[in-house]
Amino acid sequence: MRLIAYMVAASMAWVAGIAYMGIAPARADGGTVPEFGTSLPPGYRDWRLISVAHEEGKLNDIRAILGNDIAVKAYRDGTIPFPDGAIIARLAWNYVSSEENNKAFGGPQSFVAGTPTNVQFMLKDSRKYASTGGWGFVQFNDGKPIEAARLSGCFACHVPVKARDFVFTKYSR
Amino acid sequence: MRLIAYMVAASMAWVAGIAYMGIAPARADGGTVPEFGTSLPPGYRDWRLISVAHEEGKLNDIRAILGNDIAVKAYRDGTIPFPDGAIIARLAWNYVSSEENNKAFGGPQSFVAGTPTNVQFMLKDSRKYASTGGWGFVQFNDGKPIEAARLSGCFACHVPVKARDFVFTKYSR
Repeated sequence: MRLIAYMVAASMAWVAGIAYMGIAPARADGGTVPEFGTSLPPGYRDWRLISVAHEEGKLNDIRAILGNDIAVKAYRDGTIPFPDGAIIARLAWNYVSSEENNKAFGGPQSFVAGTPTNVQFMLKDSRKYASTGGWGFVQFNDGKPIEAARLSGCFACHVPVKARDFVFTKYSR
Repeated sequence: MRLIAYMVAASMAWVAGIAYMGIAPARADGGTVPEFGTSLPPGYRDWRLISVAHEEGKLNDIRAILGNDIAVKAYRDGTIPFPDGAIIARLAWNYVSSEENNKAFGGPQSFVAGTPTNVQFMLKDSRKYASTGGWGFVQFNDGKPIEAARLSGCFACHVPVKARDFVFTKYSR
C-alpha cells in the first residue's frame, strides 16, 4: 500500500505541477516534480489500460494506450472534453513474430511486443495548451524528450477527432 | 485513495479465498468473495499492463496481458516460479481495421481493438493446482466461466515454456 500511496501522491503532485504553470511544487516527501515534457511522468508504466493497437507501415509497432486516474475516469464516465490533468500515454514496441508462440499455436500467427520504440503523452491543460485543443503533446525516446519542433504536427493530426476532444483511442471494455 | 484501497483489499481477499481452499473469506467490508473461476476477479480490468500481442488465424484478435500486484512484482523482480496468489489475465478483442486512424496516417495501416472476445486467467496456487504446474486456468465468455472440460488443454499448451514457469508472455518495459 505504501508504494501505491506514494505513486498516487507523486502522480498527483506531477499533475499539480502543470496547473501551477510549471513551477515545481512540493511533493509529499519534500522533493519537487518536473514540468510536463521534461521527464517521464512518475509511475506512468503503472497506469491503467485504455486500449491496444497495431500500426503497420513505417511504424510497424504494437502499442498500449494507458491513462492516469483522471483520464481513465473521464473515459469510463464518458466525460467530454477531458478535464484538466488528464494524461493519456501511448507506449509502443517493435512488432515481432514469436516463434515460441507459433509452435504452441501450430502456425505462424503470433506477434508480440519487442523492444520499445518511444512513448508519447498528451496532457490536458485547457489554459496552457488552449491553441492546441487544450492538449500538450510530448514524446520520449529512450526516456529523453524529443525537440518541441518535432511535435508541431501532433495536434493537426488529431483534429479529425475533434468531436472526441481530439482523442483517437476509444476505451476497450 | 479510498477506491484504490478498496480495490487492493478486495483483490487480496479474493486471492486469500483461494489459499483457503475456496472457502469464501470475510472481506474488509463484511462481504464475501467468490472462489477462483466462478466469477471475474474483482478489479482485474484495473490491473497493470504486462504486455500486448496480436494473434492472426482463427483467433484474429489483439490482446493485452495484465497482472495483479503479486504477478507484476514477480515479473519485475524476475521471480521464477511465480509466488502463490499471482494472477495473469489475458484480455482479447476482435482485431479490426480503423478507417478513422488510416485517414489520419494516410494509409491502410491501423488496427485496433473491437468487441471483446473472452478473458482468460491463470492463477498460481502451487498446492491446489500441483498437477498443472501450480497454475489454475479459467476463461470467461461474456463474464461467465466456460466449462472446466474445455480448459483441459490449457496446461499442455503451456508446457513448452516450463522454464519460465509455464508463462508465455514476457514483461514489456
